[in-house]
Amino acid sequence: MNDSSVDLLISNGTVVLMDCENTIIENGAVAIKEDIIAATGKADELSGYKAARTIDANGGIIMPGLVNAHTHASMSIFRGIADDLPLMAWLNEHIFPAESKLTPERVYDGALLACAEMIQAGITCFCDMYLFEDFVAKAASDAGLRAVVGEVLYDFPSPNYGPIEKGFEYTERLIEKYLNDPLIKIAVEPHSTYLCAPELLKKASLISKKNNLLLVIHVSETKNELSQIKERYGLTPVEFLEDIGVLSSNLLACHCVHLTDNDISLLKKYDVKIAHNPESNMKLASGIAPVPKLLEQGICIGIGTDGCASNNNLDIFHEMSMAAKLGKVSTLDPTVMDAGSVLKMATIDGARALGISDITGSIEAGKKADIIIIDIRKPHLTPMFNPLSLLVYAARGSDVITSVINGRVVMENGNLLTINVKKTTEKVRSIALDMI
Amino acid sequence: MNDSSVDLLISNGTVVLMDCENTIIENGAVAIKEDIIAATGKADELSGYKAARTIDANGGIIMPGLVNAHTHASMSIFRGIADDLPLMAWLNEHIFPAESKLTPERVYDGALLACAEMIQAGITCFCDMYLFEDFVAKAASDAGLRAVVGEVLYDFPSPNYGPIEKGFEYTERLIEKYLNDPLIKIAVEPHSTYLCAPELLKKASLISKKNNLLLVIHVSETKNELSQIKERYGLTPVEFLEDIGVLSSNLLACHCVHLTDNDISLLKKYDVKIAHNPESNMKLASGIAPVPKLLEQGICIGIGTDGCASNNNLDIFHEMSMAAKLGKVSTLDPTVMDAGSVLKMATIDGARALGISDITGSIEAGKKADIIIIDIRKPHLTPMFNPLSLLVYAARGSDVITSVINGRVVMENGNLLTINVKKTTEKVRSIALDMI
Repeated sequence: MNDSSVDLLISNGTVVLMDCENTIIENGAVAIKEDIIAATGKADELSGYKAARTIDANGGIIMPGLVNAHTHASMSIFRGIADDLPLMAWLNEHIFPAESKLTPERVYDGALLACAEMIQAGITCFCDMYLFEDFVAKAASDAGLRAVVGEVLYDFPSPNYGPIEKGFEYTERLIEKYLNDPLIKIAVEPHSTYLCAPELLKKASLISKKNNLLLVIHVSETKNELSQIKERYGLTPVEFLEDIGVLSSNLLACHCVHLTDNDISLLKKYDVKIAHNPESNMKLASGIAPVPKLLEQGICIGIGTDGCASNNNLDIFHEMSMAAKLGKVSTLDPTVMDAGSVLKMATIDGARALGISDITGSIEAGKKADIIIIDIRKPHLTPMFNPLSLLVYAARGSDVITSVINGRVVMENGNLLTINVKKTTEKVRSIALDMI
Repeated sequence: MNDSSVDLLISNGTVVLMDCENTIIENGAVAIKEDIIAATGKADELSGYKAARTIDANGGIIMPGLVNAHTHASMSIFRGIADDLPLMAWLNEHIFPAESKLTPERVYDGALLACAEMIQAGITCFCDMYLFEDFVAKAASDAGLRAVVGEVLYDFPSPNYGPIEKGFEYTERLIEKYLNDPLIKIAVEPHSTYLCAPELLKKASLISKKNNLLLVIHVSETKNELSQIKERYGLTPVEFLEDIGVLSSNLLACHCVHLTDNDISLLKKYDVKIAHNPESNMKLASGIAPVPKLLEQGICIGIGTDGCASNNNLDIFHEMSMAAKLGKVSTLDPTVMDAGSVLKMATIDGARALGISDITGSIEAGKKADIIIIDIRKPHLTPMFNPLSLLVYAARGSDVITSVINGRVVMENGNLLTINVKKTTEKVRSIALDMI
């Protein structure tokens, strides 16, 4: 029993903590004080808390919010603008021309739409790479969504900042602006080894290390990238990044589809983190990342949706099901990537990949309260033999009914409290009309 | 203008007909008289109909209901009972022991739960293989869901009918009972070449032909099956079925994961239909069916969820996304299995695979009214550049808001009108407790 007062008590559910011991508490509850998890336990153990407000999970699943480890949120504007095309035709004939019509306001509107979709699907934190990232940060802040954002850096002039020196200045301004923000963290984000010269990559790495920030980069996404870098440097992208001193434990390497055994050893040696994006890699026919092999090596992997133009949704539940099934069929081994491992990738390991597992990714006292509730009173979530299996193989984003981020209730009973959905969808619809 | 009266007018949506011309009608409508589609067209063209009842699609997508070409509905009881296991351990240690506790009543309850899940996810017709199929037929009838059902036939005694002669008698009784049923059609369903002797298969084929019925069988699902049949007969399962005279245009071959070029030629030659079950094949690590190759040959393919124990959901939207993406990544060609082709597999070609494309699978005057409405006023369905892309790559089963089957509204505004969801889910939960 405990008679101290808390702000919020979430009660009457199966609590999946995603802590080191894989604790699952039946008839459990979580007590939240301000933005912090105060306690977890059986509902009757926590009933002594004087809670300013109580949310009844109605027998559902209470779990950490999902982490979307790699996306380009504002690309929600381009959802379905072009599909089923070869990568280069898709990029050059559709995506790049559409992106040339972007403005900071449109990036904000697209990001806000993506935030609405992500909150509704149980995502409480995302890692973003795009243009005009200050406006993505603003959208996430307005939505009440935790985010790690970084301006994309590359060799050619950007529609946002012009030449690359200005890109670094923009990044440094972001770092300063969001230094003590409760929701937003800045990352340094050079695009890739094929769009960034060694000097750019080294400088980006230095800035990230100096400021103790995440460094995000696309790595070995396509065969084409692999052969380009081999031709240019005689090395694989991973080997090249080691060669110039960029591999480190603060590096988040997105995609990692085409890896040699030596690449895998290097990623392991430097404790590099990986963002796995199965649906995008499948839809663009990039290939299948060797995730079971990477997991076997103990490499930390988060799950990302990538942008909406190559997916075409921001649903980490869908992505989890895909990741598990793709891992099994690609190895012809049904025992790999079991439900528990995949759920880890989408929660605590996603947070670890973003360098923020000290504050989110699991339900543990002292962490920030990033928590979602799954309504299981539905035919497709009946029966529940095992909550982990139910979450990975049967649940959909639309089963998330309530979401708390940083202690704030941002969705309750399916109602988004921070975003005007009607206004936001209408705005993006009108932007889309101008895109074609 | 038209002044005749109809029973139901579905109006104010983008109508995706799935007819031969791939017609899409913006601001369209569908008029329904009794169980039949009376007319399709622009909403203002159809506004002259005196409709007893009008349903406003609110700008959403009006489309044919989805066809689940292969499932074992009652296995919803076993959703998540055991996952991430080798196939034989999964079957022998979990599924078979659980199935030994089945009764006709439990088969009914499980099937009714599956029907609830399927209607909610936009399925208006499913093809089932299981035990006590009379009770699956009853569940489908009670749910108002169209179904093709058949009792599984194999060499060893069945918990339902005992020895195989009784199995054939049971099937013949089903055929007679449902001869003129508005929703239920019977199929003859020998399990597979590895569980059925040649005599059983030949007799099943004869009965199906004599009664002009669909013949359903699992074919080349696993490598293990392939080697067993090669060892037993010196032929692949497809070659063996040809050898004993079972290949024909009324045969629905489920799975077809492991096919030789000669198998594909034979399937094409005899106009055999295929049910593709990507998620089950992935989750059980059975392998990847060569669907792009089969489509190139013009072979008719439907999409199925398989049973809930190996998926673990009955969501054809999820299955479409998976099928398209798996086809692309397995061939490293992003242009194969485009959204339109995949949507065809889930609608008109699914109906064709079940031998019922004369009555369902598309929205065309004269066909039975099996129609669903997708609510697109949601962040994850915004914007809509292309309705086909939106349906295959972004929509979820939960976006279906209204369903009409055989002219009857079975779900409206998300409310299931034919099934008591609370009672049905509670019943299956209590059955599940007895399973472990």
